[in-house]
Amino acid sequence: MFASTMQEFPLTVPAILRHGARVYGGSECVTWTGGEPRRASYRQVAENAERLAAALTRLGVGAGDRVATFSWNNQEHLEAYFAVPGMGAVLHTLNIRLFPDQLAHIIGHAEDRFILVDDTLVPLLARVADRLPTVEAFIVVGDGDASALGDARVLRYHELLAAEEPGFAWPELDERAAASMCYTSGTTGDPKGVVYSHRSTFLHAMVAISASLMGLTETDRVLTIVPMFHVNAWGLPYAAFLSGATLHMPGPFLQPEHLTRFIAAERSTLSSAVPTIWSAILNYGADHELDLSSLRAGTSGGAAAPRALLERFEAEYGLRIIQGWGMTETSPLGGMAFPPPGVEPGTTEDVDWRLKSGRVAAGVEMRIVDAAGEELPWDGESVGEIEVRGPWITGSYHRDPAPEKFHDGWLRTGDIGTIDDRGFFQITDRAKDVIKSGGEWISSVELENHLVSHPAVLEAAVIGIPDPRWDERPLAFVVLRDGASASAAELAGFLSGKVARWQVPENWAFVEEIPKTTVGKFDKKPLRARYRADEVKIERL
Amino acid sequence: MFASTMQEFPLTVPAILRHGARVYGGSECVTWTGGEPRRASYRQVAENAERLAAALTRLGVGAGDRVATFSWNNQEHLEAYFAVPGMGAVLHTLNIRLFPDQLAHIIGHAEDRFILVDDTLVPLLARVADRLPTVEAFIVVGDGDASALGDARVLRYHELLAAEEPGFAWPELDERAAASMCYTSGTTGDPKGVVYSHRSTFLHAMVAISASLMGLTETDRVLTIVPMFHVNAWGLPYAAFLSGATLHMPGPFLQPEHLTRFIAAERSTLSSAVPTIWSAILNYGADHELDLSSLRAGTSGGAAAPRALLERFEAEYGLRIIQGWGMTETSPLGGMAFPPPGVEPGTTEDVDWRLKSGRVAAGVEMRIVDAAGEELPWDGESVGEIEVRGPWITGSYHRDPAPEKFHDGWLRTGDIGTIDDRGFFQITDRAKDVIKSGGEWISSVELENHLVSHPAVLEAAVIGIPDPRWDERPLAFVVLRDGASASAAELAGFLSGKVARWQVPENWAFVEEIPKTTVGKFDKKPLRARYRADEVKIERL
Repeated sequence: MFASTMQEFPLTVPAILRHGARVYGGSECVTWTGGEPRRASYRQVAENAERLAAALTRLGVGAGDRVATFSWNNQEHLEAYFAVPGMGAVLHTLNIRLFPDQLAHIIGHAEDRFILVDDTLVPLLARVADRLPTVEAFIVVGDGDASALGDARVLRYHELLAAEEPGFAWPELDERAAASMCYTSGTTGDPKGVVYSHRSTFLHAMVAISASLMGLTETDRVLTIVPMFHVNAWGLPYAAFLSGATLHMPGPFLQPEHLTRFIAAERSTLSSAVPTIWSAILNYGADHELDLSSLRAGTSGGAAAPRALLERFEAEYGLRIIQGWGMTETSPLGGMAFPPPGVEPGTTEDVDWRLKSGRVAAGVEMRIVDAAGEELPWDGESVGEIEVRGPWITGSYHRDPAPEKFHDGWLRTGDIGTIDDRGFFQITDRAKDVIKSGGEWISSVELENHLVSHPAVLEAAVIGIPDPRWDERPLAFVVLRDGASASAAELAGFLSGKVARWQVPENWAFVEEIPKTTVGKFDKKPLRARYRADEVKIERL
Repeated sequence: MFASTMQEFPLTVPAILRHGARVYGGSECVTWTGGEPRRASYRQVAENAERLAAALTRLGVGAGDRVATFSWNNQEHLEAYFAVPGMGAVLHTLNIRLFPDQLAHIIGHAEDRFILVDDTLVPLLARVADRLPTVEAFIVVGDGDASALGDARVLRYHELLAAEEPGFAWPELDERAAASMCYTSGTTGDPKGVVYSHRSTFLHAMVAISASLMGLTETDRVLTIVPMFHVNAWGLPYAAFLSGATLHMPGPFLQPEHLTRFIAAERSTLSSAVPTIWSAILNYGADHELDLSSLRAGTSGGAAAPRALLERFEAEYGLRIIQGWGMTETSPLGGMAFPPPGVEPGTTEDVDWRLKSGRVAAGVEMRIVDAAGEELPWDGESVGEIEVRGPWITGSYHRDPAPEKFHDGWLRTGDIGTIDDRGFFQITDRAKDVIKSGGEWISSVELENHLVSHPAVLEAAVIGIPDPRWDERPLAFVVLRDGASASAAELAGFLSGKVARWQVPENWAFVEEIPKTTVGKFDKKPLRARYRADEVKIERL
């Protein structure tokens, strides 16, 4: 190999920290308290991170050891984001909304030795405290009561830091070493651990600050509504230190009245949240005067945002909501849906573009494959499963290689969609919701949307059932409106004009209601179970 | 080591090419011809790069082999930028302005096997054609006469490409493998070869598109005036493919009338050039109507821009010139001088900030050290030699480790300056122009600037002379204005109010004139030689 003369310089979390602390030492982490916000400069955050690393070292935490957080978005959580990976240990951000069994499972699975916990979250964590054999102590942030955790194992964050001096010497780290880990939500099985490396964290921060994506600079003040226990808060803390953007941390104050007061008081320029939070803000704004004028954009991810959400923010607040796509497995930035040049902001066309799931981010490679695993063209029409690869995409899971999740080195995302010739992708379904018929996919979501547009149909849910010739074929469950009537043949004819002929279901079942989950979504599992138990009366066309 | 689960995904030039060709396939390389510009989409550039790689493979070019270019900024040069590194070979961009001896030397030193040459540059290259034993053939771009190169070794670029099909399978490359190389100008010795890796090229492109630096996006059209034989045209071609920015290539048309016609016709949004080009545009604009309204900014590098240049562009065209700093050794982006938030564009303060040399770029670490190699504070006042390290900074030179250029793993830039507490750095001198006195530096440039502000002084040049106690002390050469008079004591007194007492020279020489270089700069070498030969009449205070 002809030798390059470039320096060996590892891409690490301490390198991000040094940049933020030195070049942007005056940028701030502002934590909302309901009253007067707490402020800390990046210089102070860095010093506290140094003290925390010293304290953890004193507690015996060594390279590769896991230190968990059970925390809201706040300054101390940010300090842990730098201290734990910086010292060579691994930050495990625990989702505070997990069921106790799941929580105890992943803490044990990751073998967490210490858990930083906000005092307000002590009661939640206490539910599993006696089931955590790997945990040596809880480090409580704040001076609230922590007796529920058992006094023997309780340490106080601020006491630990007060006992240390700043100036911790960050070790030289291998950029491929683990920096942090996060478990998937595990909606379709046990949660799986994704372990980010220093390299992936650094590179992800670099792409986040690129002008085509979040484009953070020192002029930005970023309200990170997305939890820091969810994929490193979409990487925003690291991106902020690399770019000098100030961080706005809402703590537990995720109610619209607090978020909007925060934005107005501190002049946030960017905010990142899931669509339900954005919706809540819209609803709150219906009878409150909101000042969102400081926001240059809002980013939305985690689920598809409805068109009305984008249109109403544009119309009522002149605020552009930009969708981003990613997963725990992708660090998460896979792409963002900024319209291409020449599109007039605020037009229908503009909203159309912003309803795309994203546009492939630099550094990420994406493809769609059919049911046989063959790559499909980027024509905006071919539908396949989205696969991705790249330096911040997972290639396995912690103590679980999960080969079924990978395909020739690409991550199978489980998302079904199209990619157009400019790299805009549109996710139409989850893989588990599509029907594989003759090597092609039929979107159950699309069939359902068409069916409920028929005047006689109240609800519809489509599942795939085994078919000897086509592998699977669709079975449509239909609930008719009171007093309305429509035959299977009529509904099939109605669909014929809207989808390809081979996609029209020949199996129909008229039922009283579609089972729903606790959050009101159609629950197809009972439908599939009833089909398998032969309890469904099917009309075949 | 606790294992990360991230994919192994190398950061390579083909990854940049794939992104540009697929996501931004419609972006363009526009080459100025004097008449109708030539246009090629990134998709077409990628296809041509595939054909070129196939052709070079057929010629026997293998991994690590050097393929040189002797070319203007144009489409074919861009194709070589991707094809040569992409196939695993090493692109060596030759500076067409080198003296023949230097040119022959570096071609031999790099052991270039093939040279791509623009037909218009054949006469320049022909001067050394019979002194290039390593070169097997010249690949001539264009169909102009190339007989001066000796017909036996002449191949034609377009014939080679026409004989191949697109679809070259880019090999899997180690990101640390060499991608391209560029020799320093060698003003202070033999040119030294800097060899960029795939990794450094990718990471440099990532930082170039960050919003705090050039912030390229698909909406940009970048006029790359800086030559592609000079540090990869500041990395713009690779940054453009990663971001979708269109590239404007001026070819040999570097005259202001052509550049400004190009900008007006193609609506360039950004342009990068050295200060002399920017000055030439200003001068041309004094008696021509220019439309520079499409430019969102101009970047300037390679030398310090004078204040008047920044002020006049602002006043006359509303155009912000932003300075960047870097060297061949730094890929080159080390920092850019964007003013911090809150500074009103167009104000004196704004220009003050933009006269800084730069602000440390994400991914680059910078420090200043005193003459003893001790690190100095970032206080905006301490003056030291600037040292840098990072993933796109060189750690040695091709076949020349040059240990004197490095200090504990940091590159010694040879630039002397200050860094303030926000990472803005100001270069005041080249190391060779400062006087090392008692472990501190005295800036000869600063002394000279003060001296010529004295009404009796026409010219002044200060050199360091050996001193048994202080190591070096300044000797000031002064040319008085016709009819004016001033004693050494008077001039020393004049300086006392302006610089620290210990910086005031005690050695003075009044002379008839200061020797100058061919470009009109003070030439201190003859002054030093005259001092050493004891030919200078010195007044000691």
